[in-house]
Amino acid sequence: MERIESVKNQKVKQWKKLHTKKEREATGTYLIEGLHLVEEALKTKEIIRDLIISTEVSLPSHWNVDDLSVKLVTKEVMKTISDTEAPQGVAAICEMKPSASSDNWERILLIDSIQDPGNLGTIIRTADAAGVDGIVLGDGTVDHYNSKVIRSSQGSIFHLPIIKGNLSDWIDNLKSKDIPVYGTSLQNGVDYRNVSPQKKYSLLIGNEGNGVHTELLEKTSKNLFIPIYGGAESLNVAIATGILLYHLHE
Amino acid sequence: MERIESVKNQKVKQWKKLHTKKEREATGTYLIEGLHLVEEALKTKEIIRDLIISTEVSLPSHWNVDDLSVKLVTKEVMKTISDTEAPQGVAAICEMKPSASSDNWERILLIDSIQDPGNLGTIIRTADAAGVDGIVLGDGTVDHYNSKVIRSSQGSIFHLPIIKGNLSDWIDNLKSKDIPVYGTSLQNGVDYRNVSPQKKYSLLIGNEGNGVHTELLEKTSKNLFIPIYGGAESLNVAIATGILLYHLHE
Repeated sequence: MERIESVKNQKVKQWKKLHTKKEREATGTYLIEGLHLVEEALKTKEIIRDLIISTEVSLPSHWNVDDLSVKLVTKEVMKTISDTEAPQGVAAICEMKPSASSDNWERILLIDSIQDPGNLGTIIRTADAAGVDGIVLGDGTVDHYNSKVIRSSQGSIFHLPIIKGNLSDWIDNLKSKDIPVYGTSLQNGVDYRNVSPQKKYSLLIGNEGNGVHTELLEKTSKNLFIPIYGGAESLNVAIATGILLYHLHE
Repeated sequence: MERIESVKNQKVKQWKKLHTKKEREATGTYLIEGLHLVEEALKTKEIIRDLIISTEVSLPSHWNVDDLSVKLVTKEVMKTISDTEAPQGVAAICEMKPSASSDNWERILLIDSIQDPGNLGTIIRTADAAGVDGIVLGDGTVDHYNSKVIRSSQGSIFHLPIIKGNLSDWIDNLKSKDIPVYGTSLQNGVDYRNVSPQKKYSLLIGNEGNGVHTELLEKTSKNLFIPIYGGAESLNVAIATGILLYHLHE
């Protein structure tokens, strides 16, 4: 078990850089923090490259950390690599999983330009709960290895396949496989309750302010809207995604 | 139009104190910030006691601020009273509305101990969209005049009636008026899809970690759960509320 006491240690400097997308992509790794997230990651142990533990912390007794590379660090080192206000003293460096094959996906969430990390994380968690087989992120969506996304996903990021892709090609491809693509739009859409729950479907959601790009909406099987019964102008995009995915599930 | 240039001005000191629940309750007023929120508040002008504008900001031309008490302040004063990182230069002091009569409410959201301001705000916005007549906050729920709650509510707080109440009494009262009370619970609940959409209903949601208090769940008409089809442990409480309120709406 290696001990690291200096914030100037090379490893510490490199871990800290993982808060940037550039470093994450260059190394194929990302940093997670907190008891709950690390416990979730331990369920797929092979993704953990280093487990980082602050010396003053005792790990939960049910954690099995055998065969893992464990680094003991000072409270100061932990604070340096953390981006939370009150670090819980446990972190890990994880490896990005190679993209799983998406050939057999039958329930798919297509994401066009979601920008808020908290929204993206909540959407990933919700899609995981709703039984989606995989998520496709189009251009302009926030990096899903961003620490706020991972935190809001509550660990769903470790087991739900997420890939990047060209949404226009995906729509063509899904339609050729007879999987309907439902866009979301306030204009020219149909009330979502007119579409029945079904075995195979894909849902295309869009940016918080601007929605889905028009050229994508023009290619979908159908575009859905959720009626607003009261005085609110709109629904939060993660809430709308939850309502639609649960409605579509058979 | 009064000009205020010093951060030591008595009014500025008092406005700043409105970030505490104590001061909000003592004065019956609260502070809102940002173009979107102030624009929403302008729709119910009578709640605005003071409109506060930073001297370097030009108001949107369609805003009608006649008859309003307008205070012009320096950028420094605005920064002092703001709790956002990049103040938009527009704020307002609003008056809490007297509780609307809840006698005729037929669609009610009962909230037991929601603690996260962002969650409460999103829930208020969602309930407003879902056509709820009013919200009842039980003990232990974060103050709904907290600035983060107001921000996440996107202005729904200005027109959807929200009152504080004893949830146990509310459950008795609703049941006596033949309005079913649906609790939410992971244990001993029924799948929400077994309950049909209806004209009158109330939904009881609970704390992010602990759910609804057991003694309340024991009094409801029925307790519902949302199935988890995938690998996530649970749904975020605001997402669950959106799914259930939209499912129950006729």
